[in-house]
Amino acid sequence: MESIRDYQQSFLAHLKAFTGDKQPKNLYQPIDYILHLGGKRLRPVLTLMAAHIFQERYDEALNAALCVEVFHNFTLVHDDIMDAAPVRRGQITVHKKWDVNTAILSGDAMLILAYKLLENYDDSTFGALNKIFTKTALEVCEGQQHDIDFETRVSVTEDEYLKMIEYKTAVLVGAALKMGAIVANASKADQNAIYDFGRLLGIAFQLQDDYLDAFGDPKSFGKQVGGDIIENKKTYLYIKALEFADQEHQLKLLGWFKKQPDDPTQKIEAVKQIFENSGAKKAIITAVEDYTNKAFHVLSTLNASEEKKALLKSFGLQLMQRTV
Amino acid sequence: MESIRDYQQSFLAHLKAFTGDKQPKNLYQPIDYILHLGGKRLRPVLTLMAAHIFQERYDEALNAALCVEVFHNFTLVHDDIMDAAPVRRGQITVHKKWDVNTAILSGDAMLILAYKLLENYDDSTFGALNKIFTKTALEVCEGQQHDIDFETRVSVTEDEYLKMIEYKTAVLVGAALKMGAIVANASKADQNAIYDFGRLLGIAFQLQDDYLDAFGDPKSFGKQVGGDIIENKKTYLYIKALEFADQEHQLKLLGWFKKQPDDPTQKIEAVKQIFENSGAKKAIITAVEDYTNKAFHVLSTLNASEEKKALLKSFGLQLMQRTV
Repeated sequence: MESIRDYQQSFLAHLKAFTGDKQPKNLYQPIDYILHLGGKRLRPVLTLMAAHIFQERYDEALNAALCVEVFHNFTLVHDDIMDAAPVRRGQITVHKKWDVNTAILSGDAMLILAYKLLENYDDSTFGALNKIFTKTALEVCEGQQHDIDFETRVSVTEDEYLKMIEYKTAVLVGAALKMGAIVANASKADQNAIYDFGRLLGIAFQLQDDYLDAFGDPKSFGKQVGGDIIENKKTYLYIKALEFADQEHQLKLLGWFKKQPDDPTQKIEAVKQIFENSGAKKAIITAVEDYTNKAFHVLSTLNASEEKKALLKSFGLQLMQRTV
Repeated sequence: MESIRDYQQSFLAHLKAFTGDKQPKNLYQPIDYILHLGGKRLRPVLTLMAAHIFQERYDEALNAALCVEVFHNFTLVHDDIMDAAPVRRGQITVHKKWDVNTAILSGDAMLILAYKLLENYDDSTFGALNKIFTKTALEVCEGQQHDIDFETRVSVTEDEYLKMIEYKTAVLVGAALKMGAIVANASKADQNAIYDFGRLLGIAFQLQDDYLDAFGDPKSFGKQVGGDIIENKKTYLYIKALEFADQEHQLKLLGWFKKQPDDPTQKIEAVKQIFENSGAKKAIITAVEDYTNKAFHVLSTLNASEEKKALLKSFGLQLMQRTV
């Protein structure tokens, strides 16, 4: 059994062989740049782990893993344009380092390159990988559109919010795993189960991100604590607080979410207090636990050795035991 | 044998069934909008005609034809952002009617939807269609990048220019035809021949566009005559004029191409004179004829009835007999 580090290194070696000195360089250099910015390589590691559950030669899943990672980075390049984000993983974003046109065109090429990587598989595997990939890619676009739409909407329901994070984030986690299972010729039942495991874990992960954004430890949380509150984002905490709070605190919350004060300290504290007192904080902790437990339950139904499932579970636990 | 109008109408009916009231509407409405802006539907008509050469039921190629048209329109949406173009086919461009972010995301979804349309074919056809489509899509991105790069380069060689228009424009014409041939189970030799016919005709068509931009009849040419000269574009005419002209006229041409006068009338006339006197005008006419003849020669080698090849040839002739 490999450690997560082994999968990462195997993936990084494969990535290194993929990138390089291609022409025209103004198209391919930004692609190399974003793909080498680092990150935990969660999605491709999951593809390799999923393949390894069902067959010994997990390296056969390297191109599927790279497809997922190239696609994920394509979404980062285009999302960073849309968000006018200057920094990604501590480095300058592509559209700032080059320009918006370059980021659009290199992003487009990355989406096509992701598809091209699947050509390394034979016809029936190629077809199966392609279809889950296309379905997922379209859902990610729809999730991104919902997220944009929510910014200007007065209210968002819990169901709408959960659907948005499922599409924007969770389905790609599911697809990363399913694609590994497809390469390893897992049964349809196992392919679907491992997809659901990833999808549910992905939702749990994103909800936990919402939680940490408000209540995380500033030392260990990668982003600015309170960022969602500053930006008036309609997260799960916000939606549940509006649902649970009495009228006075509903109005207070709505009031705060109309403001963007220069010094947000007071706003962050007041909103966190409402999240806590209304029961929204408790509700999100429960939701994270529920989705995590559901994910682990689905994992337990897989037709694979306990030993092989254990690594995937331990990886999931690591993900979910970020510094709450 | 159908007329071109029949293929167009068959395609438009299929397009109508494809678009519609999908959610989220802010993602799908811009897609419907651009797909219904009109245009001659050249590429999908070519897909249907190619299929019809090799089998009676050309309607089986409708989804491949739509894939090509959706992809082509995706490139228009993203190219219009890059060119900051306000108008497309007499209507407001997507990024102006909505905004740049919408045009980026809806464009991305179109590229994915183009792939999704290929799922209507069985595994081996799906694989073959997918591979020529991916190859072509990547080449189109590379061609677009070369075109952008040429703007800021001091000089461009004839070979580089021909490669650029081949990638940016001609390979998609070839792929449109080849995809029709693949659906109709044409032999590999015929698939490749019809691809080459389209590729060569596409190069001829683009060179003719360069010619018409300078020497076309303002009444019948769709765009502003002299547009390339105004924008200092390094077209085939420009490259050949620099190659053929004596030093005095080389310097004059280089001088004009450093200027963008408010009233371009004098510049257009002077540059056209250099194009004509240097022999560049004659060279481009010859090149258009050469590529057209090569295209028709390849067409004649197809293993198909003369009657069926005749419509494709007559369509090609129509394209090439625009008002020179």
